[in-house]
Amino acid sequence: MAPPSHSHAHTTNASAPKNGFTVDTMPPCLLDSDEFRRQGYRIIDFVSGYYARMEDYSVSPKVTPGFLRSHLPVAAPSQPEPDALAAALDDVRDLILPGITHWQSPRHFAHFPASSSSIGALGEALAAGLNVVPFTWTASPAATELEMVVVDWLARALHLPESFMFAGGGGGTFLGTSCEAILCTLVTARDRKLAEVGECRMGDLVVYCSDQTHFAFHKAAHIAGIRKANCRVIATRREDQFALSPAMVKSAMQMDVDAGMVPLFLCASVGTTPTTAVDPVPELCVAVAPHGVWVHVDAAYAGSAFICPEFLHLADGVEAVDSISMNPHKWLVSNNDCCALWLKQPSTLVAALGTNRDDVILKDAATDGDGVVDYKDWSVTLTRRFRALKVWLVFRCYGTDALRDVVRAHVRLAVLFEQMVRGDARCEVVAPRRFALVCFRLRPPAAPLGGAGDSHVMANKLNKTLLEAVNRTSRGPYMSSATVGGEYLLRCAVGSTLTEERHVRDAWKVVQDQGTAILREMGWMP
Amino acid sequence: MAPPSHSHAHTTNASAPKNGFTVDTMPPCLLDSDEFRRQGYRIIDFVSGYYARMEDYSVSPKVTPGFLRSHLPVAAPSQPEPDALAAALDDVRDLILPGITHWQSPRHFAHFPASSSSIGALGEALAAGLNVVPFTWTASPAATELEMVVVDWLARALHLPESFMFAGGGGGTFLGTSCEAILCTLVTARDRKLAEVGECRMGDLVVYCSDQTHFAFHKAAHIAGIRKANCRVIATRREDQFALSPAMVKSAMQMDVDAGMVPLFLCASVGTTPTTAVDPVPELCVAVAPHGVWVHVDAAYAGSAFICPEFLHLADGVEAVDSISMNPHKWLVSNNDCCALWLKQPSTLVAALGTNRDDVILKDAATDGDGVVDYKDWSVTLTRRFRALKVWLVFRCYGTDALRDVVRAHVRLAVLFEQMVRGDARCEVVAPRRFALVCFRLRPPAAPLGGAGDSHVMANKLNKTLLEAVNRTSRGPYMSSATVGGEYLLRCAVGSTLTEERHVRDAWKVVQDQGTAILREMGWMP
Repeated sequence: MAPPSHSHAHTTNASAPKNGFTVDTMPPCLLDSDEFRRQGYRIIDFVSGYYARMEDYSVSPKVTPGFLRSHLPVAAPSQPEPDALAAALDDVRDLILPGITHWQSPRHFAHFPASSSSIGALGEALAAGLNVVPFTWTASPAATELEMVVVDWLARALHLPESFMFAGGGGGTFLGTSCEAILCTLVTARDRKLAEVGECRMGDLVVYCSDQTHFAFHKAAHIAGIRKANCRVIATRREDQFALSPAMVKSAMQMDVDAGMVPLFLCASVGTTPTTAVDPVPELCVAVAPHGVWVHVDAAYAGSAFICPEFLHLADGVEAVDSISMNPHKWLVSNNDCCALWLKQPSTLVAALGTNRDDVILKDAATDGDGVVDYKDWSVTLTRRFRALKVWLVFRCYGTDALRDVVRAHVRLAVLFEQMVRGDARCEVVAPRRFALVCFRLRPPAAPLGGAGDSHVMANKLNKTLLEAVNRTSRGPYMSSATVGGEYLLRCAVGSTLTEERHVRDAWKVVQDQGTAILREMGWMP
Repeated sequence: MAPPSHSHAHTTNASAPKNGFTVDTMPPCLLDSDEFRRQGYRIIDFVSGYYARMEDYSVSPKVTPGFLRSHLPVAAPSQPEPDALAAALDDVRDLILPGITHWQSPRHFAHFPASSSSIGALGEALAAGLNVVPFTWTASPAATELEMVVVDWLARALHLPESFMFAGGGGGTFLGTSCEAILCTLVTARDRKLAEVGECRMGDLVVYCSDQTHFAFHKAAHIAGIRKANCRVIATRREDQFALSPAMVKSAMQMDVDAGMVPLFLCASVGTTPTTAVDPVPELCVAVAPHGVWVHVDAAYAGSAFICPEFLHLADGVEAVDSISMNPHKWLVSNNDCCALWLKQPSTLVAALGTNRDDVILKDAATDGDGVVDYKDWSVTLTRRFRALKVWLVFRCYGTDALRDVVRAHVRLAVLFEQMVRGDARCEVVAPRRFALVCFRLRPPAAPLGGAGDSHVMANKLNKTLLEAVNRTSRGPYMSSATVGGEYLLRCAVGSTLTEERHVRDAWKVVQDQGTAILREMGWMP
């Protein structure tokens, strides 16, 4: 695009006021093409400098609560300082960067990745620059249509069944998070079921998940008015690799039906948060079919892996479910936040969340029956972001092959870490590595030296100490933990865009060294 | 910040593989300091060029549904084109910009403004660059603490009572939208009430609003499981300036109590969406006090005006409510999306939305009892954005005086528009202009020429025709409508950061000219 040919004059309009009114001051000039460019370059330079220096930061800051609050004034300034942006960026560098957790560090192995890329970040910047609010088709037609195209692109790239695409009679949307996706589908399912059994049965609705399901599901169920006592949390077992048992779901539902309750919703996970366990979707669909239960697949993290054909068997059976969601911001370099939700029957979602009161100011004839949608009826919120722009840019600028290569490279690095764990007899891999997360721990000491201790409790304590020691190292990796089947384990999630083989090898070395030091201190190793 | 001293090498690590494993390919380099700078400048240039050219665009695109979908391929590319970013930006310029509604146009007077600024947009860009996920304090301490500081700054700048600030025992958070704020407080109120009256009374809970309340409230109530039949929509009257009547609320609640129902929640609006009506908060609080009802003030748009002392009387009584929310993205140049929610007792919110299962991987000792918070427990979602960064930058770089000047300038421009409407005998201002929205219409013809027509229906038709004509002009203003008390009116919402006096005068001229043409065509004017 050519440089701007002019900047706006923000002086008072000199023409004689009409109607006896004079507007004596114009608003301050807070949006100006030239100023935006000058300031924009500085922001870009700052972020670029941050990326260049990423390895210098300790992933997790060594700060204590209150460290920042106590350094900032209690009120906003009434006037900006001279060159306030420079001063503010100095504060970002000196006060804020030392106090954030560096999710983009190549040594960030905690939680799941917040997957970033140049284009993902800049797609956000471009959307912020346009600053449109595409709540209806009319409120920004191209934004709505691009979203419809890109959710289909994404579904196709992930090899999802065509029935989830607009092209196949289904459809999708970009929300912020999986929590929203689960809430929206749960409310949809609730409305559909109550229409069938009567609104008075609200208190009898029962939802199902495993003890590995993300707490977002419990929160969504609670928000939607499902009684806490009506959330069936099915226990999983290590010998089942922490996957949900269809037989147990089936029997739990039958017990509920026998007790006069109404089974409503099953949240199946493909890639649970603690260990990336994969629930057996086809068998679960068969098990719940007699009860007309809505099945949602939460593939928040692992959904990205479906871009690789070699992972597709883990999505078997997905054609039978009602809805599926995954987060391109976790592993498809699309920056925070972005959750894709697809449904086979979007009309049920619109029936639950749509707003078409005649008197509202958004009444809109343009979208009646012409194959485009008003996305305000697909989510909790009216105001929404133009998230499709960044995902579209990511696809355009990188292509699906490169995204597949990213996933594969991370998986290979996780395999490397897994092999190093397995090569150390003191350690064990607690759950199968399916994607790029390795769940491991130091084995419980075979014969605790203290004698009196419970080896189970001691092993948990040992591994908690190990994680704290690993995360305390100033240039070491940052990992997280989970407690699964009573066992405390360390989670090494490979997925930062900057992570290379050397970071994974270094991370393992830190784990080994810290493990050795702890075992020696405890007298369990010479 | 100094230029980066190095870029990362993304070649295969040359050191000999250990454990018999070779990582043969590294992930593609999708996040690189130098590449980010080069591409970043292009994005900045593009947005800068868009701002320079803003006046050239028709605010609302002249496109028909399907215009974009039919031009895009059905699948994402597997490989990027040569210089894919340039190609994509060409497509943004040639395909997308002609199809979006230009919310930043100085001629955008529809809905409420999506208030933008250089720093607001760049604050988003910076947050996207850092790409942290501050769901707990530990997950990004500085992001959490900055949010705590900035919500207090904002509350102070808006002259809210100290009881809503962390400094005064309350507290706030930045969410995406008012819809989320209302949903979160409604669920909190519901839980508090059910704890008092018993979970079995869920079906008896009743919520209250006016016929002017935003549909977000109905959606939130529905999501939270409140029966549609239990939403009391109190009628407002033009002679009350469309404000909620405390007497009618009181009597509706008494009727519900007499019928064995349980009053739960009142959503009062300061600045309704159709006409910016202001509900009488102090009198409403007195009216509902006997029933232990949660009162929330939705000041999504008008809350920004509290930065000016001259508007503070409209916030009278706010010290008595439980929660209040407003959107800095509407009128405080903080770019989409950003909603501030404050509560006097945040602990009730955390009780409703908090997740502290022992086995979840976010269990976190750092935040127990030390005055900082885990914001995941303050909202629907776990993953969240670092919104505080942009609001902090807006305050730092502009100062509260400039933000006050923006609001005042827009109000003066709206006063100008209002005076021009009042100066034309064919027109009327339908509802009092309180902030920067003018609600107006052509008066119904005194003696319809057709004779048989209902002047009420004809006036609505006339004004609908007028709005369509105004919005069809290619360089004219873009306005929206509302139907209030059966009357269709045009809404001219001044608030785009780029709007100057000339745009307001031009907008009025277009309205006058189109009105004249329509009246002539209908034979109502010579």
